[in-house]
Amino acid sequence: MNLWSLMEFKDYLKVMGMRDVAIIGCGMTRFGQLEDKSLTDLMMESSLKAISDANASETDFDRVYVGNMFSGEFNNLAGIASVLVDRINLLPAAADKIENGPASGGSAIKEGFQAVASGVSDMVLVTGVEKMTSVPTSRTGSVIATLTHPTAEYKYGATLPSMGGLLAQLYLKKYNVKRELLSLVAVKNHKNGVNNPYAHFQKEITLEKALTSPIIADPLRLFDCSPISDGAASLVLCPAEEAKKYNDTPILIKGFGQATDVQIVAERDDPTVLEALRIAADKAYKMAKLKPENIDFAELHDAFTILEIVQSEDAGFFKKSEGAKAVEEGKTGIDGELPINPSGGLKARGHPLGATGVAQAVEITWQLRGEAGKRQVPKAETALSVNFGGFGNNILVHIFQR
Amino acid sequence: MNLWSLMEFKDYLKVMGMRDVAIIGCGMTRFGQLEDKSLTDLMMESSLKAISDANASETDFDRVYVGNMFSGEFNNLAGIASVLVDRINLLPAAADKIENGPASGGSAIKEGFQAVASGVSDMVLVTGVEKMTSVPTSRTGSVIATLTHPTAEYKYGATLPSMGGLLAQLYLKKYNVKRELLSLVAVKNHKNGVNNPYAHFQKEITLEKALTSPIIADPLRLFDCSPISDGAASLVLCPAEEAKKYNDTPILIKGFGQATDVQIVAERDDPTVLEALRIAADKAYKMAKLKPENIDFAELHDAFTILEIVQSEDAGFFKKSEGAKAVEEGKTGIDGELPINPSGGLKARGHPLGATGVAQAVEITWQLRGEAGKRQVPKAETALSVNFGGFGNNILVHIFQR
Repeated sequence: MNLWSLMEFKDYLKVMGMRDVAIIGCGMTRFGQLEDKSLTDLMMESSLKAISDANASETDFDRVYVGNMFSGEFNNLAGIASVLVDRINLLPAAADKIENGPASGGSAIKEGFQAVASGVSDMVLVTGVEKMTSVPTSRTGSVIATLTHPTAEYKYGATLPSMGGLLAQLYLKKYNVKRELLSLVAVKNHKNGVNNPYAHFQKEITLEKALTSPIIADPLRLFDCSPISDGAASLVLCPAEEAKKYNDTPILIKGFGQATDVQIVAERDDPTVLEALRIAADKAYKMAKLKPENIDFAELHDAFTILEIVQSEDAGFFKKSEGAKAVEEGKTGIDGELPINPSGGLKARGHPLGATGVAQAVEITWQLRGEAGKRQVPKAETALSVNFGGFGNNILVHIFQR
Repeated sequence: MNLWSLMEFKDYLKVMGMRDVAIIGCGMTRFGQLEDKSLTDLMMESSLKAISDANASETDFDRVYVGNMFSGEFNNLAGIASVLVDRINLLPAAADKIENGPASGGSAIKEGFQAVASGVSDMVLVTGVEKMTSVPTSRTGSVIATLTHPTAEYKYGATLPSMGGLLAQLYLKKYNVKRELLSLVAVKNHKNGVNNPYAHFQKEITLEKALTSPIIADPLRLFDCSPISDGAASLVLCPAEEAKKYNDTPILIKGFGQATDVQIVAERDDPTVLEALRIAADKAYKMAKLKPENIDFAELHDAFTILEIVQSEDAGFFKKSEGAKAVEEGKTGIDGELPINPSGGLKARGHPLGATGVAQAVEITWQLRGEAGKRQVPKAETALSVNFGGFGNNILVHIFQR
C-alpha cells in the first residue's frame, strides 16, 4: 500500500514531526500543613527529587514551567518560575508560570508537552506548587472564590464549596441517588491515602463519621471536601526517543485534551454534565488512539466527592447516573475494575491548588512503573487524569502509558 | 546531492515537522488611564479587534493564551483566560494565563508559537493585559516589587525603579557617559509617541523638561520612567502555510529566544551586561538564521531609559558602551539606521505590564505590513523585540519578518 495515497506529504510530516513525549523523572513533597517550608522550599524540594529521579543534570534543562495559582495573593511573590531556576541553578533555562485555576498543574504539564513535542525543547522541568496554610482560612476561601463570575456569582457570595453543594443537590435529585454514596467516595479515598506516605491525611474514616461531620454546603459535609494543603510535585519530560538514556521505565504522555465551558454554572444546559470534560476527554482519547475501556485506573479531581462521581461518568467510564453506583459496588476501589484515586485523591492526598495536576501525574508515573508499594494497582499499563479548573469551566485530561 | 547524506531522517522530520508560524491579525486598546474599562473589557476589546483583523471566525480558535501579571492582586480576578474565552465565545478553546513578570506578554506569544509549531493547535489568540490605574500607586509599586529577591532585595526596600537607578549609576560611571543621554531616549520616544494614536502619552517633551523633572531613583528622573497604564493587545497566530487564506500580508515569527539570569542583581558578574538578553538574542538569531545587521528596527523594553540603551547593546546592535552614543547621534531615531521604539516604547506608549510584550509585536506587525502611518519605518522587513521580566532575570527576544 502506498503511504502517500493515504495522506498528504505535509500531513505526514506534521504527524511524524510532533515528537512523542516521555516522563523520565518525578517527585513530590509530602502534602499537608507544612509550617516550616516556604513556597520556594516546596518548589525546590520536589524539583530536585524529580531531577535526581531522572538521572538528569542541571545543564540538561532548557525549560521550566511552574503551575501555581496564588503566589502573589498568598505568598507575596511574583515571577516564581524565575525564582525556581535561580535557586536550583537551572540557569539560563527559560521559565514561566502557568495559571489556570486549580488546573494550573495540568496546564503546566501540557505546556511542557508542547515544548518537547514541537522540538523547541529537549528537557523540561514541570513543577506544580501552592503554599496555602500560612494564610487565614477566611482569606483563602475568598481568594479562591475570585474564580467565580464577578457579577453573577461572586457578588452573591458564591464560593467553590457552595458550587459543589449545588451540583450535589442537582445530581442526587436528578438521578435519584442516595446522599450516602457521596460519603463512600471519601471513605474509599481515605482508605487509599493510608498507603500513601505523601498524603495529607493517612488515616481511614468510617462512613458514619463522614455522614455526621459538619455540613459545609448542603448536602456536602466536611468529609466531602478536600483540605487546604501545602505541597509541590514535579515531573521531568523529554523526547521519548531520548528517554531510555535516563530511565529504564519511561512513561509516555500519549494524549491530552483541554476544553472550556460557560463560566456561569447556572447558564449551562445541564450543570450535572461537565461538557468541558467530555470534550477534553474526547480529544485526549483521539490523540492517544485509546478508549475509556483501555484505561486501567484514573486520578480524578475530587475537590468535592460529587466531582469524582460526575467526572467518572463524563470521562467515559460509566454511563450518566451510574458513577455513584460504581462506588457502592466497589468498582472504583483499588482492587475494583477501574480503581479511581489510588493516591487518596484530593480528599486524602490533599489539594495544594497548583500542585494537584502534577501530583496526579506523579502518582500515575509511580503506578505505571510499579513503584506504588501497598497502594499498587495490579497490571497498570494505561492511566488517565482529570484536572478541574474554575468550577468546571476549564478542564484538562491527560492519558499516560507505560 | 543526497539530502539523507546531510542529516538523519529523524532530524529532517524534526526540522520539517516544526511548522512555521504567522501572525494574521492584531489589535490593541489605547493605552492610558482608562477609568471606565475593566480588565475584562480591555481583554475583550483587543481580542475582538485582532480576530476581526485576521478575518477569522470564533470557531477557528482552539487555544487562547493571556499574558498578565496581577489580575488577582490588582483586579480580584483569577482564571482570566477562562473568562476571556467565555465572554467572546471562543468556547471550548483551551485557555491559560502565562505569568512571567513584565515579560508575561512575550511569554504568552512564545507559548502560542509552540502550540502552533508543534501541530497541537491550528489557530491561537494571544492577549496581553493589565489594569493598573485603579489601584493606589503605593500598592502598585509594592506589588511589583515582589519580583525582587525576598531577603536580599525586597526586605531592604528595593523597587524596580531603584534597581533601574543603580544600573544607570553603574553604567554612566563605567562607560563615562553623560547623564543627559538618558533623557535623549525619553525625548526620542515621546516624539515617536505623538504619531501613535494608541500611546498613553502623545506629546513631545523637551530635553530641558526631562532633565529638570523630579528625581525618582537617582540618576533616573520622572521622564526616565515608563508610566503606570491600563491596556491590552492581541495577536492571532496560525501555521504559515494557512496564513494567506486569512491575510495578504502575514508576518512570520522567524525565531525566539528566552533565558534567565541570577535573580539578585548584585550577584551578577557585571550588572551592566544583561546576560539573559545576550543568550536569548543568540537563540533567536540562530533560530531565525539572521544576524543583528539584518534587523531593520526594534521594539525594546524601555521601562527605564537606561534599559533601552543597555538592551540596544546586548541585543547585538551596538558595541558595549556605544548604545548611548547611538541615541545622541540619532541612529535610533525613526529615520536613523536602526530605529528603536517607533511606537513610543514603554515610555510613551505606556506600560500595562502583561500587555507590553504583545503590544511590541502588534507595533511590529503594523510596521512590517506598512500600516504604521506617520510613524512608519521606511523599508521595514525584519524586526526584533525585547521583553524584560523581573529585573532582567527572564528575558524574551522575538524576531519577525514580512
